[in-house]
Amino acid sequence: MHKYVYLFTEGNGKMRELLGGKGANLAEMTGLGMPVPQGFTITTEACTRYYEDGETIAPEIEAQISEHLAKMEQITGKTFGDPKNPLLVSVRSGSRASMPGMMDTVLNLGINDEVVEGVVKLTENPRFAYDSYRRFIQMFSDVVMSVPKASFEQFIQQVKDERGVTLDAELDADDMKKLVVLYKKYFREQKGFDFPTDPRTQLFESVRAVFRSWNNDRAVYYRRMNDIPASWGTAVNVQSMVYGNMGNTSGTGVAFSRNPSTGERKLYGEFLMNAQGEDVVAGVRTPQPIDQLRDIMPEIYAQFADIASRLEAHYRDMQDMEFTIERGRLYMLQTRNGKRTAQAALKIAVDLVDEGMCTPEEAILKVESKQLDTLLHPQFEPKALKAAKPIASGLPASPGAACGRIYFDAETAAAAAKKGEPVILTRLETSPEDIEGMAAAQGVLTVRGGMTSHAAVVARGMGRCCVAGCGAIRFFENDGYIMIGETTYREGDFLSLDGSTGNVYAGQLPTTEATISGDFARFMSWVDQIRTLGVRANADTPQDARQAVEFGAEGIGLCRTEHMFFEADRIAAMREMILSKDEAQRRVALDKLLPMQRDDFVGIFRAMENRPVTIRLLDPPLHEFLPTEQADIEALAADMGLAVSTLKSTISELHELNPMMGHRGCRLAVSYPEIAEMQVRAIIEAAVSVKKSDGYDIVPEIMVPLVCDRKELRFVRGIVDRVAKEIIDASGITLEYKVGTMIEIPRAALTADEIAEEADFFSFGTNDLTQMTFGFSRDDAGKFLDQYYQRNIFESDPFARLDLHGVGRFIEMATTLGRKTHPDIKLGICGEHGGDPSSVAFCHRVGLDYVSCSPFRVPIARLSAAQAKVNE
Amino acid sequence: MHKYVYLFTEGNGKMRELLGGKGANLAEMTGLGMPVPQGFTITTEACTRYYEDGETIAPEIEAQISEHLAKMEQITGKTFGDPKNPLLVSVRSGSRASMPGMMDTVLNLGINDEVVEGVVKLTENPRFAYDSYRRFIQMFSDVVMSVPKASFEQFIQQVKDERGVTLDAELDADDMKKLVVLYKKYFREQKGFDFPTDPRTQLFESVRAVFRSWNNDRAVYYRRMNDIPASWGTAVNVQSMVYGNMGNTSGTGVAFSRNPSTGERKLYGEFLMNAQGEDVVAGVRTPQPIDQLRDIMPEIYAQFADIASRLEAHYRDMQDMEFTIERGRLYMLQTRNGKRTAQAALKIAVDLVDEGMCTPEEAILKVESKQLDTLLHPQFEPKALKAAKPIASGLPASPGAACGRIYFDAETAAAAAKKGEPVILTRLETSPEDIEGMAAAQGVLTVRGGMTSHAAVVARGMGRCCVAGCGAIRFFENDGYIMIGETTYREGDFLSLDGSTGNVYAGQLPTTEATISGDFARFMSWVDQIRTLGVRANADTPQDARQAVEFGAEGIGLCRTEHMFFEADRIAAMREMILSKDEAQRRVALDKLLPMQRDDFVGIFRAMENRPVTIRLLDPPLHEFLPTEQADIEALAADMGLAVSTLKSTISELHELNPMMGHRGCRLAVSYPEIAEMQVRAIIEAAVSVKKSDGYDIVPEIMVPLVCDRKELRFVRGIVDRVAKEIIDASGITLEYKVGTMIEIPRAALTADEIAEEADFFSFGTNDLTQMTFGFSRDDAGKFLDQYYQRNIFESDPFARLDLHGVGRFIEMATTLGRKTHPDIKLGICGEHGGDPSSVAFCHRVGLDYVSCSPFRVPIARLSAAQAKVNE
Repeated sequence: MHKYVYLFTEGNGKMRELLGGKGANLAEMTGLGMPVPQGFTITTEACTRYYEDGETIAPEIEAQISEHLAKMEQITGKTFGDPKNPLLVSVRSGSRASMPGMMDTVLNLGINDEVVEGVVKLTENPRFAYDSYRRFIQMFSDVVMSVPKASFEQFIQQVKDERGVTLDAELDADDMKKLVVLYKKYFREQKGFDFPTDPRTQLFESVRAVFRSWNNDRAVYYRRMNDIPASWGTAVNVQSMVYGNMGNTSGTGVAFSRNPSTGERKLYGEFLMNAQGEDVVAGVRTPQPIDQLRDIMPEIYAQFADIASRLEAHYRDMQDMEFTIERGRLYMLQTRNGKRTAQAALKIAVDLVDEGMCTPEEAILKVESKQLDTLLHPQFEPKALKAAKPIASGLPASPGAACGRIYFDAETAAAAAKKGEPVILTRLETSPEDIEGMAAAQGVLTVRGGMTSHAAVVARGMGRCCVAGCGAIRFFENDGYIMIGETTYREGDFLSLDGSTGNVYAGQLPTTEATISGDFARFMSWVDQIRTLGVRANADTPQDARQAVEFGAEGIGLCRTEHMFFEADRIAAMREMILSKDEAQRRVALDKLLPMQRDDFVGIFRAMENRPVTIRLLDPPLHEFLPTEQADIEALAADMGLAVSTLKSTISELHELNPMMGHRGCRLAVSYPEIAEMQVRAIIEAAVSVKKSDGYDIVPEIMVPLVCDRKELRFVRGIVDRVAKEIIDASGITLEYKVGTMIEIPRAALTADEIAEEADFFSFGTNDLTQMTFGFSRDDAGKFLDQYYQRNIFESDPFARLDLHGVGRFIEMATTLGRKTHPDIKLGICGEHGGDPSSVAFCHRVGLDYVSCSPFRVPIARLSAAQAKVNE
Repeated sequence: MHKYVYLFTEGNGKMRELLGGKGANLAEMTGLGMPVPQGFTITTEACTRYYEDGETIAPEIEAQISEHLAKMEQITGKTFGDPKNPLLVSVRSGSRASMPGMMDTVLNLGINDEVVEGVVKLTENPRFAYDSYRRFIQMFSDVVMSVPKASFEQFIQQVKDERGVTLDAELDADDMKKLVVLYKKYFREQKGFDFPTDPRTQLFESVRAVFRSWNNDRAVYYRRMNDIPASWGTAVNVQSMVYGNMGNTSGTGVAFSRNPSTGERKLYGEFLMNAQGEDVVAGVRTPQPIDQLRDIMPEIYAQFADIASRLEAHYRDMQDMEFTIERGRLYMLQTRNGKRTAQAALKIAVDLVDEGMCTPEEAILKVESKQLDTLLHPQFEPKALKAAKPIASGLPASPGAACGRIYFDAETAAAAAKKGEPVILTRLETSPEDIEGMAAAQGVLTVRGGMTSHAAVVARGMGRCCVAGCGAIRFFENDGYIMIGETTYREGDFLSLDGSTGNVYAGQLPTTEATISGDFARFMSWVDQIRTLGVRANADTPQDARQAVEFGAEGIGLCRTEHMFFEADRIAAMREMILSKDEAQRRVALDKLLPMQRDDFVGIFRAMENRPVTIRLLDPPLHEFLPTEQADIEALAADMGLAVSTLKSTISELHELNPMMGHRGCRLAVSYPEIAEMQVRAIIEAAVSVKKSDGYDIVPEIMVPLVCDRKELRFVRGIVDRVAKEIIDASGITLEYKVGTMIEIPRAALTADEIAEEADFFSFGTNDLTQMTFGFSRDDAGKFLDQYYQRNIFESDPFARLDLHGVGRFIEMATTLGRKTHPDIKLGICGEHGGDPSSVAFCHRVGLDYVSCSPFRVPIARLSAAQAKVNE
């Protein structure tokens, strides 16, 4: 028979997948001979089985639980439900990874009207006994039976009023007894049945509640945010109770083996004497710092300090521990690798290596790569953040914290910023016209759009905080206000955005600046030594390029040339080009763009020195460059000497029903080869010029977007080769260049063997590839994806985390096919997934040469790549 | 050495791929001992080589041509360029399939100032000799040197004026001589070099011109329309000249072995005595019917009739022959299987079987499946069509001919139609709101959209003529007119559309009605006996369903439920549903839709009797059902008691940037399970009701659209099974039903093994699958696909002809994966490709169970399926 339940004495720390983190560590501490209240763990497999069996606990699992309960009774010498010597237990969830969304603890389980009398006798403390009883009713009702804890508070007030007292502490045993009666009566009213008094019923209901909580909304959301698969399931820990509230030789506390904020090597934590864990949280009394325990109970302190140091050495990482002192005896309730700030994480990792506790390879696994974000972006002050309540939430599209006045169009936002105001650019969705406003803003907030929407991509590129797809906002742009719920926020009002969580707050939340410690450089040097996967950045300007190099990028994997065309002095020539009636007129406009575009590339090549630069030819549909507002159209018509109606007719002709699948990418080069010619000319002339003036060995990589057939690439490559040869021949120097393609259309992946014969490199454009693979518009999918998460159809946003099952299969297919016909083809990824840790790990696994992501994600990608190498 | 040139005596009729149709048949006739002027054929491989070698003729090919020219001199006893006994030749293109777009013939090649004198001596006919010479200059200049033939006509007029005569026939030898001088002078002025007098130069330039013409715009267009790959190439035929204009015992003619209009078994054709082929075409003299040749030259007639009958028996098909009589001797210049009307094709096929000339299997290959269209739709009168010049052309989106007054919105069009006017609904693009107007119209003309745009799909379904994506039209809807070129057409003006070619004509072109002959039924009965692939129809209404059955559909492969919601009495409830604030309100509106939807299905089930019916759940995004015009929005707001601003805000919230990849398909069922519930209820209740009342064995097939993951299908299937069980349990009868899915998203094809575990059937939705595979929006791709054809990147429209290389690979992948986990899964295709002959052949090859297409294409699909079986 399959084993679904393990005593703490039967498990160990390596059984994390089966016993969950908490269960495995309790077993491990037991094995290390540490004082752990004994009990058993119901495995994660039992949870999975529970769901397979239609949300019921199979009889064989029920039997095993009963059997292990009996063993626990033997070990503790107490009996479950026996008033003479009752065993009371706690029930806690515990999955493989930390899961804040899951069920809260139930304490004191096993108590009822008879058992409580036994507790009174054993402890000679009736108030304690009945207080424990009423707490249990409250907790069990809340956690297992969905009767909110807070709804019981009215009775405490009622009893206080009757007694004429104000503090809970002033209530005596009889009051507690009365509360038990009132609570049970209330429970019956709410649920229509009696509060369960049978300890076994209490136990199994609680186990079921833990299993259920694995799929509650909060848990599903947390899993999605943290890449945890639903299939892991949670374990359940049943542990005999110990009490920190049994007098002045009892107490309870929490401590870290090092300081989780700074990383300092010193016990850090707090405790309360004569209290239960709950009291610490409730904040009625102020806990004392952990080192004061030395003065109060020196032996206990020494024992705990010793355990802490042994645990740290054992796990070779900083530990987060819970303990209880019951009548002068120390019990360890939990240990785990402690959460820490990014600062602390770096210091601890570096210190652990210096202390000889671990190797750099091990140390780099102890820093969560996503956490590096907080080093690079401003954050909210933790206390202010804890106290604040979000008024809405959207997608965490670009990390960091921002606080500013909201403005609804880019121009007004930019003007306000010029006056020195902090600004939050707030839009239904952003378009390339908004770039200036985004650059001027502290943060960007959009109502629509997903993790790869324009707002998200551009904000990440700028390192600007962004919350996207915040659907709760109703927009009344013309009237100058937005509404969230029933509250109105006018232009100029303050909002605060947390781009790392997606939360939006009213008013001003104080922020702290980004800071990079000295440990960072040392840590990252290990990272770069370890990783084999290259890391490049997506950068469109010399400034971005310098930023990217500063963050450790080894090249540019994607330079989007179109962003250059939106600048005020260029858009005019661009529009002239688009509105040209024929090729000749188009060439006149292109000639105006050529020197500007060439200068862009000169700047980028200089910034990147000898590093490779991949430049993508014009990608977006031309209508994106045309104005949409009546006033702008009139102005443009006047500028260009066109009738407004003619211009409108042209704009309407360019309109597309599904622009993502429209006239864009290499399709533009097929229709208007002269555009590609101009861009190639600008690239090659810039390369020749910088090679001559600065002596760098520039090898431009020209990338053709949106290819679906080898013949498309062959056609565009023909243009590139012709123009490049002409310029290089005339330059008097030699210049190497490469021509490659994005793989971002399913058909390109299917026919990658053919396409590879025309290409020097592939770069996977996973934003578009994800769109086409799923048939999800990244701008529109936000609307329905929430329901996909709720119904457990999807576990994560495929635009944020690479869909290995579908999109990943295309990448593997194209990698295999491409290398078949072109064994030394260079392979990279330049979609937004290039900065996502789990996606980077996949890229390492399938053997890509590099990932490319926005500059601010480069450190994350470097660390993720190194971790993937170590985890191989 | 590879052989690139074949004497007619070296080839035979089976070498069509190498020698082209014309060359192979000349060789075959030579082999049969028929009188053929001898010569040689340069192979299609030489053409391919010409392109591979950068549009040059390789020296080895040149050498082989020279060598075979020498052999030809031996055979004919004449010498190329020798004034004493000159060999004159014709040069003609000849590809594997008939290619009207290609190069015209060059006759009399080898003539020059010296040679012409030899011809004078040999023929003792100076006028003939110089007439031949000037004709050659004109033809060669036109065909090889791009100096238009018509530009020479001025000199004929000039000479006539000088001579004071009016008819060409009145010109004498000296006049012709003068023309030669004038022509050559003109040529020099136009080209800047002398007219080539060296016969070898003339020959090689002509060969090059033939090769070049393989890729001219007309040829590329024709190939695309007729599924002919560019890789086939064309052969070149060089044949010694014979002359029908050497006096009264000479002549020339064209004849069919049977009547190509009616199929009647009787020589059919015409001839002219003392004339060259060119004269027949020019129409200066009226040719005589072929049977009059019997009176003039009975022996020649008998010889020709004998040859015709031998050729027919030999090729076992009706022949189209060209002949020339030179001084009382008959020469065969060409034979080929004759083009014929659909009527004639059917009669000939049936007669050939009755005459024992071929089996039904062979007979069905002699009818081009696409031709059946002309039996089912009105056509323009051939003479009127020949005389008319198109003013614009678009995509041949739905076949047939239509003539009517143009109206720019559906309402006006419907109103005009009610008054008895013939109507052409003319729109930028159509949407579901236009359906009524489309139904009322004779034809539909759109500016945008491709072969699978809304207009195209709906018009095909209705059997209504449609020209889509006619980009030449500039639309001034509000001002009540459109412009094509510089001409204005106002609402109410007449236009004529040819939906089979995509041409648009000004004014009224007379049409002929569709007629189906008795041969049709007999022919199609063979077709149905032969084919193994099932054929179903896409039908949304009982009327469509009856039409489909009449055309031989064996079931419905796609019933689009959404079309039912656009009807006037339903759209109100539909909109109420969409604008509902919560599920409860939505359910109230759905309850109103339920009985109407149920009645739809009752009607369809009755019409289909025991045949299977696949019903697709709601597919389009909800915003498609909402109004877009201000007036309509105001009316709806008033209807629903909503503020206009609220309604607008809701409409704006539902707006999507890329609706094709938006909130539609099964994503609607995930968000609003109650919509799917209502539809399932309507389907199952209708099935129960018809089964009870009519006794048919109804097995509804419920199809879930746009699935990309097994879990989506599992979720929706859960709804279907729950609702169906409830209704069936309550019905007191048993009812089987199936649940399947569209495979139309790349990820569904990639994960078809998993999806198949949840599905009873797959139906390939190749419209969407093509969109996603290429990343081409079917509504927008028309704009750039033209350039793809021009640049030879694509050879056909992937929305009209299945892209076997990409989309086809997905179909094969999904077929293999699906059958791996679900061996007896039923597989069909319901995209528009289901009615395209080459796509049907592919579906047969990969082993699908059925294709489904619009009712009017069902006969085509049946024939294509049978042909695929025979060609296996």
